Amino acid sequence: MSRVYNFSAGPATLPEPVLQQAAEEMLDWRGTGMSVMEMSHRGKAFVSIAEQAEADLRELLQVPDNYRVLFLQGGATAQFSAVPLNLLGDAGSVDYVNTGSWSKKAIAEARKYTAVNVVAEGGSGDPMSIPPQSEWQRDPDAAYLHYCANETITGVEFPEIPHSGDVPLVSDMSSTFLSRPLDVSRFGVIYAGAQKNFGPAGLTVVIVRDDLLGRASETVPAIWDYRRQAESDSMLNTPATYSWYIAGLVFQWLKREGGLRAMAERNKRKADKLYAAIDGSSLYRNPVDPAARSWMNVPFVLADDQLDGTFLSEAADAGLQTLKGHRSVGGMRASIYNAMPESGVDALIDFMADFERRHG
Amino acid sequence: MSRVYNFSAGPATLPEPVLQQAAEEMLDWRGTGMSVMEMSHRGKAFVSIAEQAEADLRELLQVPDNYRVLFLQGGATAQFSAVPLNLLGDAGSVDYVNTGSWSKKAIAEARKYTAVNVVAEGGSGDPMSIPPQSEWQRDPDAAYLHYCANETITGVEFPEIPHSGDVPLVSDMSSTFLSRPLDVSRFGVIYAGAQKNFGPAGLTVVIVRDDLLGRASETVPAIWDYRRQAESDSMLNTPATYSWYIAGLVFQWLKREGGLRAMAERNKRKADKLYAAIDGSSLYRNPVDPAARSWMNVPFVLADDQLDGTFLSEAADAGLQTLKGHRSVGGMRASIYNAMPESGVDALIDFMADFERRHG
Repeated sequence: MSRVYNFSAGPATLPEPVLQQAAEEMLDWRGTGMSVMEMSHRGKAFVSIAEQAEADLRELLQVPDNYRVLFLQGGATAQFSAVPLNLLGDAGSVDYVNTGSWSKKAIAEARKYTAVNVVAEGGSGDPMSIPPQSEWQRDPDAAYLHYCANETITGVEFPEIPHSGDVPLVSDMSSTFLSRPLDVSRFGVIYAGAQKNFGPAGLTVVIVRDDLLGRASETVPAIWDYRRQAESDSMLNTPATYSWYIAGLVFQWLKREGGLRAMAERNKRKADKLYAAIDGSSLYRNPVDPAARSWMNVPFVLADDQLDGTFLSEAADAGLQTLKGHRSVGGMRASIYNAMPESGVDALIDFMADFERRHG
Repeated sequence: MSRVYNFSAGPATLPEPVLQQAAEEMLDWRGTGMSVMEMSHRGKAFVSIAEQAEADLRELLQVPDNYRVLFLQGGATAQFSAVPLNLLGDAGSVDYVNTGSWSKKAIAEARKYTAVNVVAEGGSGDPMSIPPQSEWQRDPDAAYLHYCANETITGVEFPEIPHSGDVPLVSDMSSTFLSRPLDVSRFGVIYAGAQKNFGPAGLTVVIVRDDLLGRASETVPAIWDYRRQAESDSMLNTPATYSWYIAGLVFQWLKREGGLRAMAERNKRKADKLYAAIDGSSLYRNPVDPAARSWMNVPFVLADDQLDGTFLSEAADAGLQTLKGHRSVGGMRASIYNAMPESGVDALIDFMADFERRHG
């Protein structure tokens, strides 16, 4: 067996110890004689797995007691609908920041249910940037203010949490969740699909402040009713049990690795050296304002896009996989989530330098 | 490692060869150097897995060409909302048969979106039965007729497919899907959560007839829009890739085992002998009309419910797990899906006889 460095934007690389443990426990979880996949979600064994995962996540993120942590299905895209259906209440509109493709998708879903006020447009231009908050056209009566903390496709990331005053702040954190410590108390709702930074596709964590439960529209589908899911410990219906278990193994791995502070140091170091290699080259270029560069998704273009195919095939031969940029923007993208070891970033940088020497 | 016989109603036992293969491939799927869990859903490797799974399912069920097969998230409970949101169109109401708990949940969700006409009430009384179709009060203008093919909690199963004339027939088949051959052409929509009979929780198969695409309400959440999901090969957003892969392994196992005709023979034999053991005893009783008895979920009560705890703990000691009935009805329930070997049913019958000798 030869593992590659997998730079996929999601589903994405997972820590090898997590996969090893999952393989070892596949047919018999700790003497139960069954796979986690086969366990009743209501049984003692799985409930212990679920509770441990939540406790570890709360510890990692220092989630305050007045927040509920939900383990749901449907990905961030489901939350694009669930957020307005749960939070709109009697308000007449919602505020969204648009910084790229995922912002746009969230906005399109919200428009099915209410008027959307786009407070700022960013993530376009060259370099791509995020408009300063002083320029945002916010509505103080909005039901909430929504932003995408990290645009996975373009690698545009908010360097700081926006200020929302009394308006609940909602964030799609899918591709940056658990990349560093986070002040959860600044938020009304945080949601994140697992398949970027903490597990398999099919699981979404939603962290919601207590006082926002119970505002749901009467037409909210039952499985997306935050209050009902909170009251039933995310088991209003059968949850994605195996994905929940894998996420729990990732949380344990994160704790063993030193938690989110250690992750932040490592992630910053990985990103800094990759951006430095790009900026120091005459072949590669990253099109994002340095103030808004993502730690997790690093897109870059080649000065001669005729070389794209050669770059990708030589990279693959060198064990550097899934570097192709999203089809909507082209070029390359290296996603360097928590589970991408520093050695993988080093190998990529070495390959890029060598490629430039030969083709630049 | 000692595997038990796991009679859980879902998540439920899976074929051991499937789990073995999943464990072996966990860190490196066929030389790709990555786990299926880590693969981009848009990459060649995963697309080949997804397409093979769909092809195998189509072959197993002989799905006609004018049906689309979707691999979605959210379980049957999500479909309780998705079905009316997709199929209501200009109709003013929908028809539902109520045969138990899952029917009731589907009805409650549909009522959020339209008027629901309950055409028949069954699944209550002693024995529980399904009212003959001649007595159903159907509306010829209903958008569709919905029924739950097998009520997992009470073990009430339709012995035949109802006739719906020109009204599209919709069925929640979660706990009976793939238990036997099925004439798909009789249906408008079939849906089934994977966690009963073909995979891990978090995956739902929806089979929808072509002409029913494109009727969705404007407020349908994007991920539940059958047309959009069909157009994007169930990848409008990131699907539950690993669960899709495991389901594919189960489909391959089913083909190796002889397909659905072989499954039907085996399942009927397993169910017949378990019901015979129950009917022939003076300690156990199944409360379902023999004409409506489930092949998959066999509930039974003990003449003296003071013995329930002893029964369950002795059964667990004998390697017969998760036999407790659903909390809403009590008693026992043996779920004997495709992956429960005949030897497991034999072991249960032997244990029940021995228990009756000692405690009856």
